[in-house]
Amino acid sequence: MTTQELIAQIKKKNSFLCIGLDVDLNKIPSHLLKEEDPIFAFNKAIIDATHHLCVAYKPNTAFYEAYGIKGWQSLEKTIQYLNSNYPEIYTIADAKRGDIGNTSTMYAKAFFEDLAFDSVTVAPYMGKDSVEPFLAFKNKHTIMLALTSNEGAFDFQTKEVNGRELYKEVLETSKGWKNSENLMYVVGATKAEYFKEIRKIVPNSFLLVPGVGAQGGNLQDVCKYGLSENIGLLINSSRGIIYASKNEDFASKAATKAAELQQEMTAILNQ
Amino acid sequence: MTTQELIAQIKKKNSFLCIGLDVDLNKIPSHLLKEEDPIFAFNKAIIDATHHLCVAYKPNTAFYEAYGIKGWQSLEKTIQYLNSNYPEIYTIADAKRGDIGNTSTMYAKAFFEDLAFDSVTVAPYMGKDSVEPFLAFKNKHTIMLALTSNEGAFDFQTKEVNGRELYKEVLETSKGWKNSENLMYVVGATKAEYFKEIRKIVPNSFLLVPGVGAQGGNLQDVCKYGLSENIGLLINSSRGIIYASKNEDFASKAATKAAELQQEMTAILNQ
Repeated sequence: MTTQELIAQIKKKNSFLCIGLDVDLNKIPSHLLKEEDPIFAFNKAIIDATHHLCVAYKPNTAFYEAYGIKGWQSLEKTIQYLNSNYPEIYTIADAKRGDIGNTSTMYAKAFFEDLAFDSVTVAPYMGKDSVEPFLAFKNKHTIMLALTSNEGAFDFQTKEVNGRELYKEVLETSKGWKNSENLMYVVGATKAEYFKEIRKIVPNSFLLVPGVGAQGGNLQDVCKYGLSENIGLLINSSRGIIYASKNEDFASKAATKAAELQQEMTAILNQ
Repeated sequence: MTTQELIAQIKKKNSFLCIGLDVDLNKIPSHLLKEEDPIFAFNKAIIDATHHLCVAYKPNTAFYEAYGIKGWQSLEKTIQYLNSNYPEIYTIADAKRGDIGNTSTMYAKAFFEDLAFDSVTVAPYMGKDSVEPFLAFKNKHTIMLALTSNEGAFDFQTKEVNGRELYKEVLETSKGWKNSENLMYVVGATKAEYFKEIRKIVPNSFLLVPGVGAQGGNLQDVCKYGLSENIGLLINSSRGIIYASKNEDFASKAATKAAELQQEMTAILNQ
């Protein structure tokens, strides 16, 4: 999917909501455990109930890998279901990959070709030649970690390098990489005040923002500093939406929670 | 496996060689493509021919994920074959994972419990709470990227933070994490002169060293500065060994290449 197609979808739906499909068998309604593939059954119900309220889905691959081959099958079924039934939806493999050049190419093929995701998250630590193999894929996005929403973000990301924090160095450096127009960045919502500084470095890039909801980030604050001319934000919520209920009404309760965020977004876009 | 068991194996075999199982279907002998599972058939032959010469195997997960569910099955068969037939061998899932706390726990379960690897590689960018969930597993090691062997290592890893390079800050900081005795570090062989400095920070930790062979690193130089009192090195070679021949003799040719390195190691250990 192109950036323009993503923006068009956002404008049409008045939403820049991404729903994280981080499915934990201990947290889904117990009646689903009788299904042949409980994870896919859960995802399918969530997707059918919420697809008109969000523009993107983001399965975190860890939750699928934890169940081995069965988990990998659930992930494959989920992306195939999305691509077949809701092709307008933007898809993100939250995999946080990164390796030396020829190995990054293997990862890129796995997520962009084999699974046909629109985008994948990557880690910056190994630098340019670990990320450029992802950037080479046309009409695909590579979403690089910049400033994450966890406590550990302060261990290295905010340490000073060349007179500025490491995450700013990461943002600035990556702008010079080949096909950098295919880059987006992960910026945690728990640090809304940082968005102002980030927009000085990447005024137009899309930012994927986890940490609204369960992790305590505030949507209004993020939008105040983070919105760009072309919106430029994808706000992710996972647990706050998909685990809104542990009962048979889980999908409709998830839709209610998603609608609350979508309406808040509509109000912000129309301000 | 405990660190002591790993050291005992190294002393017994006079080898600290790790063989990287980075299997690319375009590079393996063509007669194997007729097999039901060519990747596993290749790995099995390589393992059977080289297990007495090395102490560890390291499949890079990217090469398996690139083939989807089939690839994941090949990885599962490989680790099961190793654990059943050569339980003394140390196993490394080269996955370079890292995510927020609860997600890192899922990854740790995937590699330590579901697949039963002895260790997994992780990325440091997200800090303490992204790595500690891995460290909590008893008799398992977490191998964190410090200084990698690729060009991009100079983008961020060698930048100055708090008056020293970022990779040194990573090493020093991680020593204070809970269960840090379960940490090992990735340090590329292409930068042998750095080992002296690294040993000042982590004198006894095991270092996993890629980049000997195909990437141009020199074994003698690495050992000169990197060997610790308890050896403390695992030297990885992937392409230089497993692709020594593209013909039916690939496994015996791989053994020849592995034996060359093992003999060099024996000489170094007996100096």
